[in-house]
Formats: sequence, C-alpha cells, structure tokens
Amino acid sequence: MEHIRTPKVENVRMFDRLTPRKSTVGTLYLSSTHTIFVENSEARKETWVLHSLMSTVERLPTNPSGSPLIIRCKNFHVYRLLIPQEKDCVDVLASLTRLSRPERYGELFCFSFNPNLDKELREKAWAFIDLKAEFSRMGIPSNLWHATAANHEYRLCDTYPSELYVPKSASPAVIVGSAKFRSRGRLPVLSYYHRDTSASICRSSQPLTGFSARSSDDEQMLQAIMKSNPVSEFMYVVDTRPKLNAMANRAAGKGYENEDHYTNIKLQFIGIENIHVMRNSQQKLIDVGDLAAPTMSDFLWGLENSGWLKHIKAVLDAGVFIAKAVAEDGVSVLVHCSDGWDRTAQACSVASVLLDPYYRTIKGLMVLIEKDWVSFGHKFSHRYSHLDGDPKEVSPVMDQFLECVWQLMQQFPCAFEFNERFLIQLHTHIYSCQYGNFIGNCQKERRDIKLQERTHCLWPHLWEHRTEYTNPLYRTDHSQTQGVLKPLTTAYCFKFWKGMYGRAEKSLTSQSPADCLNAVREESQQLEEELSTHQERLAELKEMKTSGERKKTKKLSERARRPIPSECELGSPLDYFTTPRSEKRTPSFTLPLELAAQPKTGDPDDLSTCSDFESGVADLSSHSSSAGDDAKDPD
Amino acid sequence: MEHIRTPKVENVRMFDRLTPRKSTVGTLYLSSTHTIFVENSEARKETWVLHSLMSTVERLPTNPSGSPLIIRCKNFHVYRLLIPQEKDCVDVLASLTRLSRPERYGELFCFSFNPNLDKELREKAWAFIDLKAEFSRMGIPSNLWHATAANHEYRLCDTYPSELYVPKSASPAVIVGSAKFRSRGRLPVLSYYHRDTSASICRSSQPLTGFSARSSDDEQMLQAIMKSNPVSEFMYVVDTRPKLNAMANRAAGKGYENEDHYTNIKLQFIGIENIHVMRNSQQKLIDVGDLAAPTMSDFLWGLENSGWLKHIKAVLDAGVFIAKAVAEDGVSVLVHCSDGWDRTAQACSVASVLLDPYYRTIKGLMVLIEKDWVSFGHKFSHRYSHLDGDPKEVSPVMDQFLECVWQLMQQFPCAFEFNERFLIQLHTHIYSCQYGNFIGNCQKERRDIKLQERTHCLWPHLWEHRTEYTNPLYRTDHSQTQGVLKPLTTAYCFKFWKGMYGRAEKSLTSQSPADCLNAVREESQQLEEELSTHQERLAELKEMKTSGERKKTKKLSERARRPIPSECELGSPLDYFTTPRSEKRTPSFTLPLELAAQPKTGDPDDLSTCSDFESGVADLSSHSSSAGDDAKDPD
Repeated sequence: MEHIRTPKVENVRMFDRLTPRKSTVGTLYLSSTHTIFVENSEARKETWVLHSLMSTVERLPTNPSGSPLIIRCKNFHVYRLLIPQEKDCVDVLASLTRLSRPERYGELFCFSFNPNLDKELREKAWAFIDLKAEFSRMGIPSNLWHATAANHEYRLCDTYPSELYVPKSASPAVIVGSAKFRSRGRLPVLSYYHRDTSASICRSSQPLTGFSARSSDDEQMLQAIMKSNPVSEFMYVVDTRPKLNAMANRAAGKGYENEDHYTNIKLQFIGIENIHVMRNSQQKLIDVGDLAAPTMSDFLWGLENSGWLKHIKAVLDAGVFIAKAVAEDGVSVLVHCSDGWDRTAQACSVASVLLDPYYRTIKGLMVLIEKDWVSFGHKFSHRYSHLDGDPKEVSPVMDQFLECVWQLMQQFPCAFEFNERFLIQLHTHIYSCQYGNFIGNCQKERRDIKLQERTHCLWPHLWEHRTEYTNPLYRTDHSQTQGVLKPLTTAYCFKFWKGMYGRAEKSLTSQSPADCLNAVREESQQLEEELSTHQERLAELKEMKTSGERKKTKKLSERARRPIPSECELGSPLDYFTTPRSEKRTPSFTLPLELAAQPKTGDPDDLSTCSDFESGVADLSSHSSSAGDDAKDPD
Repeated sequence: MEHIRTPKVENVRMFDRLTPRKSTVGTLYLSSTHTIFVENSEARKETWVLHSLMSTVERLPTNPSGSPLIIRCKNFHVYRLLIPQEKDCVDVLASLTRLSRPERYGELFCFSFNPNLDKELREKAWAFIDLKAEFSRMGIPSNLWHATAANHEYRLCDTYPSELYVPKSASPAVIVGSAKFRSRGRLPVLSYYHRDTSASICRSSQPLTGFSARSSDDEQMLQAIMKSNPVSEFMYVVDTRPKLNAMANRAAGKGYENEDHYTNIKLQFIGIENIHVMRNSQQKLIDVGDLAAPTMSDFLWGLENSGWLKHIKAVLDAGVFIAKAVAEDGVSVLVHCSDGWDRTAQACSVASVLLDPYYRTIKGLMVLIEKDWVSFGHKFSHRYSHLDGDPKEVSPVMDQFLECVWQLMQQFPCAFEFNERFLIQLHTHIYSCQYGNFIGNCQKERRDIKLQERTHCLWPHLWEHRTEYTNPLYRTDHSQTQGVLKPLTTAYCFKFWKGMYGRAEKSLTSQSPADCLNAVREESQQLEEELSTHQERLAELKEMKTSGERKKTKKLSERARRPIPSECELGSPLDYFTTPRSEKRTPSFTLPLELAAQPKTGDPDDLSTCSDFESGVADLSSHSSSAGDDAKDPD
C-alpha cells in the first residue's frame, strides 16, 4: 500500500467514450491491485481496473470543472475521468503510475492473487497441460526422433525447455556443435511432427554464419532433420525475416544458411517485419480504434496507414507456406528468424493451427501456446511489459498470433471449438499477470522464481468456464474441421478486428452472431432434452407393455442422475450444455485430473479478494452473489 | 440471329481469373441470348453468359497465341478468352457488342424467355405482389388517409403509379396545385405508415421554389401530411442531397422548402451524392475487386479511394434518421431529392427495412421493392442500362440499397429471413432482363409496352426457390426481429462486400457461414424428424395400451400425409424445411394464389430454351436432370 498516495476520491466523473456528454459521478478507490469506480447511482455500479493492465495514465491540463485523467489499458479499454481537485488528480496519477509499473516480479498481481485453492489442487492445476503427452499425441516415430537430455539444467541453451526433441541420428557432438553455431544456443529442435506425411516442423534461431563461417555440426544437424523424413529429398529452411534484414545480420556475425553449404535445403524468406515495426504499427491501429466518430476515410486511411493487416497477412502467409510444405509436399521445414522466439513462434504456431485440428480445440490451443510460446522461451515479460523496463522490448507478437487465429475463424467458422471471446480472454490474461502462466521470459527463469509454487495456473480456470468460450458452430465430424485448413490470404479476406480494437462499440445494442447462435443452440438443446424425455416415456411404455409397471420406478431414478441419455443423437459440441443452467454454479470442475471426484468447497475464485475480471463493471448491489457471477465479462 | 456473325468458334481458351496460368480449352457458341463455352474435357462443362448481362466486351491486341477477349458482366463476373484467329475474335466482338446492347425493348431477353408457363399461371404470377393489400397491411387509418384517383390515367404525374395515398384532408385542388409545384409533378404522397406512432413517411420530388417562389397548395399539402399525425406538432422534410447541390438547383427554378414559408417543418439535409458520383465510385470499387493479387495497401487504399463505403454509410444514415424520427419521436417525414426516384427511393426503403420486420422477410422485401422502386417510378431501364442509351443515366442506385440491407444483415444476423444469396440474385435479375419486372422506367411505360401480357414475373419464381434464400438464423420470435433495428453507423461497421464484388474468390474452397449454418439446420431438422417419429410411436403405444391395436393403421396413414406434426415445438423458420429433400422436385409451388391446389405439370422452367441462370457453369453430362438442378447457382 506504500504507493497509494490517496486511497479514495469522491465526486469523480467518468465519461463514456463514444458520447462524451454521457457521464456518471461516483467515488474512486485505489487498492493495491485495482482501481475501482463506484457510481453514486442507486445501482452502485462498479468498474474495476487492474493496475497491471494499465498501459498509460495521463493527466490533461486542469480546466474549470476539474482535472482530466485518462487511463489506457493493455487490452485497449480506455477510461476517462474528471477529478474535481487538481491535487487529488496529481496524487492518483502518481499512485497509478507507480502501481501500474511494478519493478520486481514479486510485485506482480499473480503473487497476491488468491483464489482460495488448496495446495494440492493448485499443484494439480499446473499439471493440466502435459507437453510430454503432447509430443506423444503427435505420434513421433521413436526410431527417428527422441527426447534428448542435452539441455538438462539448461546447460546447452538457457532459454529453451530442458527437454528437447531431436532426430535420433544426431549425435551428442552434433547437437552441441549445432547449438554453438546458433544465436543464443537455440539449436534446431522439433516443434511439430505431422504423422500423415512424416514431415516435421523444427525451429531454431539464426546461424552464426557472418559472411562465410560454417559449422559441420550444424550442417549435419539439418541433414539429420531432413533424413528423419524418409521419403523427402530436400527440406525447407524458412527464414521469416525480410531478406534484407537477414543479410544485414551477417555484419554482426549472424545471418542465414548458405544453400551451397547445407545439402539439399531450399531457403525461403517470408518478410515478417521486426518487433519495432510491429509495435509502431499496432499503436497506429489503436489510434484508429480510439477515434470517437471517424469518417469512412479516417478509418480506412488509418487502417491502411497502420500497416497492421499487412503484417497479419505476412504472419499468416508464413504459416500457410509451412503448412503447405508439410501437408501437401511432405517436406520438412526448419523455421527461424533472428533469436527464434518471436516470428518463429508465430510462424510455427500458425502452421500448427492450420495443420492439426487438435490445436483448433480449446484444450489444443492451450497446449499449443504452452508448447510454442511458454516452453520455447517467448519473452512474455519483456514483450507485454509486465515490469517497468525497456520500452523497445515491448511488441504485440502474441496479439498477432491470436489475430491470425481470429482471421482464420472468419474464413472457417465451423473449424474452431473456441469463439472470439476465448481469444480476447487469452489476450487479457497474457497482459494482466493475474495467473503465473505468462510471467518471466523462459522456463529457466520461471523455475528460478518458483512460479508454480507461488502462483496459480490459468488453464484449468479457463477450462472450467469453457461453455462461455465454445463456438456453437463447431462440428468435430465436419470434413473441414478434420483436415488441413487452406485459407485464402488475398487482401480482401482480412478484416479490422472490431471485437479487439473497437471495444467501446460493443456496449451498444448490436446483436452478435455468437449471441444468435447461442440462441439457436439453446433451442436445439431444448429439443434434445424433449427428445430424451420422449425416449424415456417410450422406453417406459414399452416396458409397461411387456412386463407391466413393475420396473418403472427404478428406471426413472436411473434417468434422474443423467440429464441426457448417452444414446442421444447429437455430436459432442452440445454435450457441454447438457447440464441444466441452474446447476451451473454447483461444482462443475471437471478437469481430467480426477479433481471432479474430490469433494470441492466451491468455485476456486469464490473467496478471492478481488474479482476474477481485471477491468469491467460489476453490480455492487449483488454482493452476496457467487464469484461465478462476477466472472462474467460485462462486455 | 441477324447480329451473330459467327455462331461457333473452336479451340477457344478460357482463363481463370486468379490463376491466369490455369485455363481450359473448349468451343464457344453464340446463341441469340447467350454465349456458351463448352469445355473439351470429358465433363463437357458449360459456362453460360447471358448477353443482356454483359457490360463491356473488349478485344486486346493479338499476340502469337491468339486474340484475347475480355467480357465483363453487370454482376461483376469477368470472363477472359483467347481466340486463335484474329478474324474470329473480331467477329465475336462485333456480335457480342451488338447483342449486349439491345436498342428496343422488344429485343430484351424477357420477351423471348419462355419458362413454359400457361397463360393463366403467368397472369396469376403477376398478381403475386398486391400493393393495395400492402397499404392495407400497414393499417392506414381510413379517417386520415385515402387512395386518390387524381392520377388516374397518369394525368397528374406520368412517372407515378395511378393509385396514390394522400391525406384525406388534402382537397383535389391542393393535390393538383402541389403536383404543379413539384419537379415532374411528383407530389408528396404516402410511402409508409407506422402504425405504432401514427407517423408516416411521404415522398416527393423537389419543390419548384427557385430563389423565392412558393405555392399555397404545396404548403397546404405538407400541412395536411403533418396533421395526419394527430399527436405531432411538426414534421421533418428530409432533403437527401448535399445542401450545396440543393442550393444550386434554385438557379434552375427548383430547390428546397423554405422553412419560413412552410408551417412547422424542420428541414434536414443528408448529403447523399448524385448518380454520377455513385457511378464513378462503383467503377473504382469494381476495379479494386478486379485486382488479381492486391497488396493490403492496394486493397485498403483502393477501397478508401473509391469512396463507396462512405456513400453506403450516407444512404444508411438517411434511413436511420428517418426511422428514428418515425419510431422514436413519432414525427412524420417527407423525403425528397431532386426527381424523387433515386436517393428518395433509397432513403424511404432503407427506413422501411429498419422500421418494419415485414420488409425483412423474403416476401416483404419483394413487396418493398415493388412499392418503393417499381411502382414509384425508379428508372430501371436507364439506371441499369437495359437498352443502349445515355451512359450518364446509368448508376448503381439499387446496388446501394441492396448493399445497405447486406450491411444491416452483418449487424443483425437473426433479423432477416433471407440470406446474402437472395440479395445477389435480386441484383442479377435487376440487370439481366430475364423477367419483366424491372423493364421500363415507370408504371405507365410498362403498361404501354404491355409487359404483363408479354413477359413473366420474377417474384413467384424466387418464392418457389425460397429454401435456397432462407437465413437459417432467422427467428420470428426474436426481440430484435420484431422491433425497429437501430444499427451502428460508425465507420468500423462497414465492410467490403466480398460476395458481391470479390466474386472470383468464392470458387476456392472456403467454408461460408451460411453453409455451416445450413449444416446445423439440417441437423436440427433431423432431430425434429426423429422427435416426431418418437411422438408417433408414443401415441401409438398409448393407444395400444388403452384400446388395443384397433386404431393403429388409421393413425399411421394420417401421419403419413403430414411430414411434421403441428404440435412440434419449433418456430416457423424451420417449417420451410420440413418437406423431405427428396420431395423437393415434386410440385411445391405454394403461392398464396391457390396455385398449389392445381395439378402442375412440373417446374415452371422445366422446358425453357435456356438455363434459368444467366451466367454460370452447368454440367452438360447431366442433360437429363431437371431444370431445378440447373437453377442452382454454381457460385
């Protein structure tokens, strides 16, 4: 609480973004983790803003009515306040500036966030995603690939996971030699194995070629990767950078593979720009989304000028190139950029989403993020500005991956188990530091700060609420759902992501397709329930006919325990909704961790000191409601 | 056939738009109505292009491989051909240039199109839309409004319908005087009456004010309109033009209402640009859609530069203003532009779609187009270039209305009974001249050329195929469906209409939301059928239980006649789909015209000399299939 100069300011006015004349008066409270605005109205409506989600806090010149304060959040929400006394405004500004810029990991929200989960449950939650199981799910042939202990205790590469999958034919010397010839020791290792064609996606950082250097070990490493795909005669090396950038790196002793030195490789540049270009581009896009009443020209010109969709297209194009090589041509691909933790993560994970229907499920996307981002050393804390640090390290790399997935959802509305809300929720959690998942920059760092012992895991929490994140159009048995996605990437096919960047719009009464589909789904469910009732009646009548009324009571009690009979005709997507709505608040923690079998004391967030949702509007009048209600995003 | 210089050219190559290296070789046939390309491949795939849909035919310089010919259609399809001999290409060009530019109404396709419908059916089809019934549906109070005979034989205004609805309090002298003071005699008359508020939408052309002229009759006419809404103290006059254009018109003795002369009016300019601006804007948009591989910048810059979405927004804004005045403020509105047949038709019909759920149904949209466009004298033949005429008269006025509806569908996906396909189909028919509906420029002209006696009516044909045009998300009982639509019109909310202007995209394998929804719908239908089967079984078993098996046979035969029991729980949208698919080809001509009761010889298009679809791809190998199959748009 040391940073809070003033814990409470009265008669603060909060403005509506779109209609500045609309505003409400209330009291502003500053807690150690949240800023809370409570309306003076009878409803006592609350708006909670998590300090770690605040991006900038800005004070405008004082005018006769007070001192304006603008809070911009990392999830693109904006709050405009008017504080009567300048002194209060200065104090709030100073407090929030400090509170929103933690200097040490220990200050992050995740270390104080306490959803009242007992130790055992918390530990089990961290085991919710199992990457060993994921590599085994891929069906890697054990005669060609294996897990190496070479990075045990991170002695080979301190930003890689300790367990790495490499070709079995690569000797320990080759592995070590290859790591030495790669930027930051990030040697080529397996990211994804495509069972249908035996082709693989490997990832690494750039080689230390300079203008002429070569490494026999690194060359042998690529040979080993190529030969792990028995049918293919060459492999692709995808350098996701613009060729010019790759060439410039040679002056610093880095660079790209020389096709004359590596046997049977084809080098392909993709041209995704660097983190600085992306940061500037997103800022321009945010400015566009921030315009209160843009003309069509303002909007389209701003969208074009930001370059954002061009960059999204570049990332998607990289994924499409890799997926096509792997699935259609059966050719393995090594992907790298400079350090192999930004563009490489984007390209590999977009390709994986295109290739494997599993990554298009709720659980699968979690696994993919855990594998290609968390485990492989994407610098979450630097990129998403978790700590007060170098602003040049900040860049919306993950934002772009999530948007690529969203753009794909627009083209293939039946192919994804999750909905837009899931992506937006993931985006918020990546920035918010409420859970421990995205803290730190690599596995070693997370282990060093003992994250798993001190914070909570996000995945089971999202899984528990998966009904909110389910796409009603998803069909597991759809041909499109099953196969490889082949999206169009012509310019027409990219859209401004209104749900992410035009958030204020949503407060108005437009009917989203998701809401409509939920209505359809609910109707289908009612029908399904009716069907099952009739089936029951039918079974009863049949029995009555054959053997009188003897068995009736038993049969009915059996049914009562199962809301939907297993012989129901509908596919799995609807199964999530078979629990009657009124039962939603009772224990429904159905993790595949045997948690469901244990008696549960309630919702894991039930007694938390703060709302699960970092910034939003809650209704104070219903203080007695369960945490589950608060957890509903008011947007 | 006099215009066909060469009826057949062999070894013609047709190119794919997106991948110019992809092409097929075949034979080109020129009939009096269609150009047909038949592939040499085993499938003998046919592409039919209706001559009246051709917009331009262009020959490029001959190169060693032949003479290129580009055919651009009014529905934005483009065909690229390569003809081996230059002479043949010159002949085809000359033939198509003449065939695609008919000089007299008699040459139009509708006068030769023969769907083999007997005379009585054809006449009944023309009665499918009944505007008298529509005005009565609106619930116009007969003490305040009535139909006047003043325009009998078009003696008051030759571009208006003969039957006009005016305030009962307006005397014949006032009506005549008002007509004399309005451009082309298009006096203020009722377009739509809003029962909930008693406010009305009237339409007219601009008044002949010049710089100072006034007409007591016209002023009394507006007074009468205002007073027909008993609760309101003023009325709006919405001049849909930019104010500058309206002012400029004063120099020609025209102009706009002076608020000092007309009692209790409020004048509002909206700023929709004129037909010339719109024509140029659409051409730029077509060019954008025509780019083979645009960069993101090309696309967004082109979209902005075309100004198209800005114009769409202006039309929608006009509709929103009027709908808000009528529904929320309960104030009547008089809408005009210059002549009152372009922007006025757009503004009135967009407002009607927002105000009245009926116009958001398949039948309702037909009625609206018949009322505010066909009957009120929108110049279809001039605007859509049906005859070779003044190119300055051509403008995509109706295109813009259809696009406004499409943009609304994006915001309110459950509120419309029809889908995008319906709008695109309407667009094609407006240009194609296959049916008589959109021929001529006003009711009088259509009567003079005896259209109803000589051509066929489109509406029953579309109605018969309505299952193809139905939006599976539509719910009649939805609150949004019932009420007034209040769309957002901020720039973010407008999208490039890919389905209309980026048509070539569709040939690739992307999964449209509509297709997904159809899959969901079919699943629901199966479930529903299963439910009814179970209900039957249940009823049978119940009967068996109470009275033995006596009545079983009768009950079953009763059911057989009704595919779905009326006690079924689902709403009406699914009712269209209750007929099993295999029965689709059997008589299903269920017009509310007692046609269904008559024995029908088959599909009305069954023995037509040409495909129902003006330009598309049919499979010649299935010559024996019914016309219904051909009628499936291959896009």
